[in-house]
Amino acid sequence: MKIAIAQLNPTIGDISGNTQRILDAAHQAAAQEARLLLTPELSLCGYPPRDLLMHPDFIESMTKALEQLATELPPQLAVLVGVVTLNPNAGVEGGKPLFNSTALLGGGKVQQFFHKRLLPTYDVFDEDRYFESGQQPNRFQLDGVAIGVTICEDLWNDEQFWGKRSYTINPISDLAQIGVNLTVNLSASPFTVGKQKLREAMLKHMSTRFNQPVIYVNQVGSNDDLIFDGSSVAFNRQGELICRAHAFDTDLVFVEYDESAKNLLSPLPVQTRIAPGIQETRSVSAGLLIASLPPSSSIAPLPETEDAEIWSALVLGVHDYARKCGFSKAVIGLSGGIDSALVAAIAAAALGADNVLGVLMPSPYSSDHSVNDALILAENLGITTQTLSIGELMQGYDHTLEAMFAGTEFGVAEENIQSRIRGNLLMAIANKFGYLLLSTGNKSEMAVGYCTLYGDMNGGLAAIADVPKTCVYSICNWLNENCRLQIADCKLNSSSDPQSKISNLKSSIIPENILTKPPSAELKPGQVDQDSLPPYEILDDILARLIHNHQTPDQIVAAGHAVEVVNKITRLVARAEFKRRQAPPVLKVTDRAFGVGWRMPIASRWIPKTNSSQASSAVSTLT
Amino acid sequence: MKIAIAQLNPTIGDISGNTQRILDAAHQAAAQEARLLLTPELSLCGYPPRDLLMHPDFIESMTKALEQLATELPPQLAVLVGVVTLNPNAGVEGGKPLFNSTALLGGGKVQQFFHKRLLPTYDVFDEDRYFESGQQPNRFQLDGVAIGVTICEDLWNDEQFWGKRSYTINPISDLAQIGVNLTVNLSASPFTVGKQKLREAMLKHMSTRFNQPVIYVNQVGSNDDLIFDGSSVAFNRQGELICRAHAFDTDLVFVEYDESAKNLLSPLPVQTRIAPGIQETRSVSAGLLIASLPPSSSIAPLPETEDAEIWSALVLGVHDYARKCGFSKAVIGLSGGIDSALVAAIAAAALGADNVLGVLMPSPYSSDHSVNDALILAENLGITTQTLSIGELMQGYDHTLEAMFAGTEFGVAEENIQSRIRGNLLMAIANKFGYLLLSTGNKSEMAVGYCTLYGDMNGGLAAIADVPKTCVYSICNWLNENCRLQIADCKLNSSSDPQSKISNLKSSIIPENILTKPPSAELKPGQVDQDSLPPYEILDDILARLIHNHQTPDQIVAAGHAVEVVNKITRLVARAEFKRRQAPPVLKVTDRAFGVGWRMPIASRWIPKTNSSQASSAVSTLT
Repeated sequence: MKIAIAQLNPTIGDISGNTQRILDAAHQAAAQEARLLLTPELSLCGYPPRDLLMHPDFIESMTKALEQLATELPPQLAVLVGVVTLNPNAGVEGGKPLFNSTALLGGGKVQQFFHKRLLPTYDVFDEDRYFESGQQPNRFQLDGVAIGVTICEDLWNDEQFWGKRSYTINPISDLAQIGVNLTVNLSASPFTVGKQKLREAMLKHMSTRFNQPVIYVNQVGSNDDLIFDGSSVAFNRQGELICRAHAFDTDLVFVEYDESAKNLLSPLPVQTRIAPGIQETRSVSAGLLIASLPPSSSIAPLPETEDAEIWSALVLGVHDYARKCGFSKAVIGLSGGIDSALVAAIAAAALGADNVLGVLMPSPYSSDHSVNDALILAENLGITTQTLSIGELMQGYDHTLEAMFAGTEFGVAEENIQSRIRGNLLMAIANKFGYLLLSTGNKSEMAVGYCTLYGDMNGGLAAIADVPKTCVYSICNWLNENCRLQIADCKLNSSSDPQSKISNLKSSIIPENILTKPPSAELKPGQVDQDSLPPYEILDDILARLIHNHQTPDQIVAAGHAVEVVNKITRLVARAEFKRRQAPPVLKVTDRAFGVGWRMPIASRWIPKTNSSQASSAVSTLT
Repeated sequence: MKIAIAQLNPTIGDISGNTQRILDAAHQAAAQEARLLLTPELSLCGYPPRDLLMHPDFIESMTKALEQLATELPPQLAVLVGVVTLNPNAGVEGGKPLFNSTALLGGGKVQQFFHKRLLPTYDVFDEDRYFESGQQPNRFQLDGVAIGVTICEDLWNDEQFWGKRSYTINPISDLAQIGVNLTVNLSASPFTVGKQKLREAMLKHMSTRFNQPVIYVNQVGSNDDLIFDGSSVAFNRQGELICRAHAFDTDLVFVEYDESAKNLLSPLPVQTRIAPGIQETRSVSAGLLIASLPPSSSIAPLPETEDAEIWSALVLGVHDYARKCGFSKAVIGLSGGIDSALVAAIAAAALGADNVLGVLMPSPYSSDHSVNDALILAENLGITTQTLSIGELMQGYDHTLEAMFAGTEFGVAEENIQSRIRGNLLMAIANKFGYLLLSTGNKSEMAVGYCTLYGDMNGGLAAIADVPKTCVYSICNWLNENCRLQIADCKLNSSSDPQSKISNLKSSIIPENILTKPPSAELKPGQVDQDSLPPYEILDDILARLIHNHQTPDQIVAAGHAVEVVNKITRLVARAEFKRRQAPPVLKVTDRAFGVGWRMPIASRWIPKTNSSQASSAVSTLT
């Protein structure tokens, strides 16, 4: 039995478009004589649909689309489609009104529904808000093969693998008890750094523990803050990886289930791999800056380093946010610093250099090298620039506020005015020409509030606000190294791909001076970040311990950090909550990102402190 | 048995301060010879603590504070305290790591824990994110009286009252089966318009259905977007209301349980009512603009109208947000329009007129009446003003952008620049002098995006962004009427309260011209809101149907609205999602507010349309 895995990139709420994506995949699968087609979790509406689920007509649209789709599918193909269904017992027995379901379509009809059993409610997930848990193990027979159906989280509770239980039941164990030949897992599993390794270790464990093949199909593409990395995989009953779809790209891959061996065979011929809708995801970026991933085997490679992985995720994140919101062009404030340099490089890769505008807005406090570095960067990337000096506007604000501010000293208020002048200019350009403004702040500064609300925080999307500053450096260094490798490649292959002209011409993307000069906001003369903050290596380690690991200040001190630095940072993090609340969506690349999955009170008086002392002073001042 | 109800106003995370609040109430209760003291849900940390719960030291702090508190309580008093506890079975049997609990303290020790059974996950609630459900009915014996303990949502699932079940179990029914004399409900139930009537109807139903007294103690005070209105009540077994604590204020009230009658007695002497910490909540506002609520009986009155109710909620909301964030002063942009007029009035009531600065920022497009109306309003309120003309800055931006914008027409970009100049000036003033900036947008414009991101949306708190425009008018008219009534009152009583001087002097708070002129953003010559939007009566009705009732466009048309208007509004609402995502916290007064409980995707293509047609075009453009 040939099984097709459609790694699709749905747009949230685009039910007709998503239906068409499934139908296209089905026709391609049928052309390859597949018997079963798998699609991701909620493939009909895209994941996560969030509060669209509260509109009855949204649910009804799905029901109609599903029934129509069933009639249009190739007759020999069974298809699993992710869809939301009504819980008929809600209101009677209690429970939420909907199920997160998978529908089995075949023979022109909707044959059967399977309901997700484990509903995640941590981090960015709110599934208990909408859905009731399925109560039954989900299984169907196809040509004598018993196939277990699990949906995403259903597989993530094996106490042997995790060493603990997060839910009382383990759906794959239930399936093993009632007997299945094969388990499929339809997922929309968001990307975080290193997660694919964990997924594959877990799926390998599942296949060997339960002595059955496991096929995992993941959504790909980015929806607001969440990036879905694809990398769908299949393991045979020996726990061997026999197939992996592309990372960060749509894909359609095939595996063969052998009924006599009760196992998946590997590998399949390469030519059966077809990428539907690939142009939606990476048409522009594929040729630029990163190597594409040739399907040289049935196992697509993973990005080689964490830097490469984050880069690919962010390029997809920017690309899809722009595309799904209807933007083709982006504008970025280029300060000459490393953060805006990285965001500009991401934008150029995501949208094409021709579609990115960098705006330089020097003030009297800007150093010459800032302007030069930004111009060199823009030239390296091939993006256009505009330069708008803000000195005159700074004087305008000074003049307008002269009487009110008389007798006060230059301080944070004046620094913020500069940042907000730039924010206003960038938004004016974005509004005038229909550009998407990308904000350029990194995670370290978002954490401690070293950024200006309504200033440099402005934008439709915060591209690198889940990337710590030290990691920004690391990715930029990797980019330059990668670029040098590509140049070598290009010379060898005489590539004529116009998209790669930049990497053909330059020995680095990010100018060396941007990588080596001390970071500075340049909002007053001679200012550098380290006037206000500890060195970023120290800051990022403290932040990781505090934010990711929820360590206490005493534990952080025990790890070697200075008491006063730790207490300062915990205070800054608490104080900056009001800024984060008003930030644009943050592309999520870690397991603890600012955004939908970060739910902190603002008017709070809890600040962790060393020596188990509890601070009890107000923490927010609006700057 | 005398039972004290402490309607407390905790600050989130202020564990030592909240402990002291409980201890103060306990001493006052003991002085009145109470045997049992009730406090609200999570009274030790404040509700909702949100992701502070992910810090192990936060939980540990609570445990220590609880144990210490037990040793400090008056010896004759049993106290129920809301606290977070660890779930020892998490990881072993599955389940979340914490319980939302109530601790029974007495005899110098923590005697018993009770765990919340029904965990809400709708609207603003995320309790499944942190907590495991309690599995047992919660009961304890005190002096031979069997007292059932329920926590907030535990009481909100009676299928007889609601005509449906939201959860499979009904905790009060379970308690009735095992036998209790009395049920207490410890709540942190957020305010929405009209909710108290619903609560009282439900509690009355509970007491009669289960033939037992029910005592409901609610948190009071505002935490970020959520306003808790207090209004704790007790019903006897006949379903008679025998006690109600103040609305929108801290309170300490007493009821007597008669063991022979197995019932609550009513009423108690008035002099036993003491309001602990009242100065935290309403010291400034009590005398200004709204009548205080004299405890003329054991049943405190409720606000007489919805306008009065919303007004009181918003005054408390602004007051507590400012206080809990450490602000004593607020700044507001005064446009001469009705929205900023209402926000200024709320701020004056919440913080005192002396602590409010109104900033007028006329442009060449501002009409004379705008400036005059704003100045009259400020005089009526007794707040100071500053006037900063923005014409020069507008020219500065025009000049800076001249080359880039050459050949384009004046449009939304230029309109937004004006709004963002004002936003920048207001933030500069806020930053310079440590003011809280209050944004002034109403719910109607937040819904359709008739507001400027980083402009008039700027602020630490959106005071009226859950109040539809028609309701803004209604509240302002009520304010003026109330003011006239207070003048009459003051003349009768010769009040010498300095806080009420304004209402003594003026026949209206909101100048008549603000109430009667057509609303306008004044961002271009002759502009009025109705150039872009339907009349607000029509807009607000469509929005209520769409947002609150989740009606389909066809249903809205069937209710009498024009097809093209309905389709336009649904499109505008979808398009404005990116703006709402970056809005300040919105004080919630309805059951469907923008903010924590509004979770919509941005990069989405679902726009409901008439005739069941699905739109499939990108919806967001950043303006």
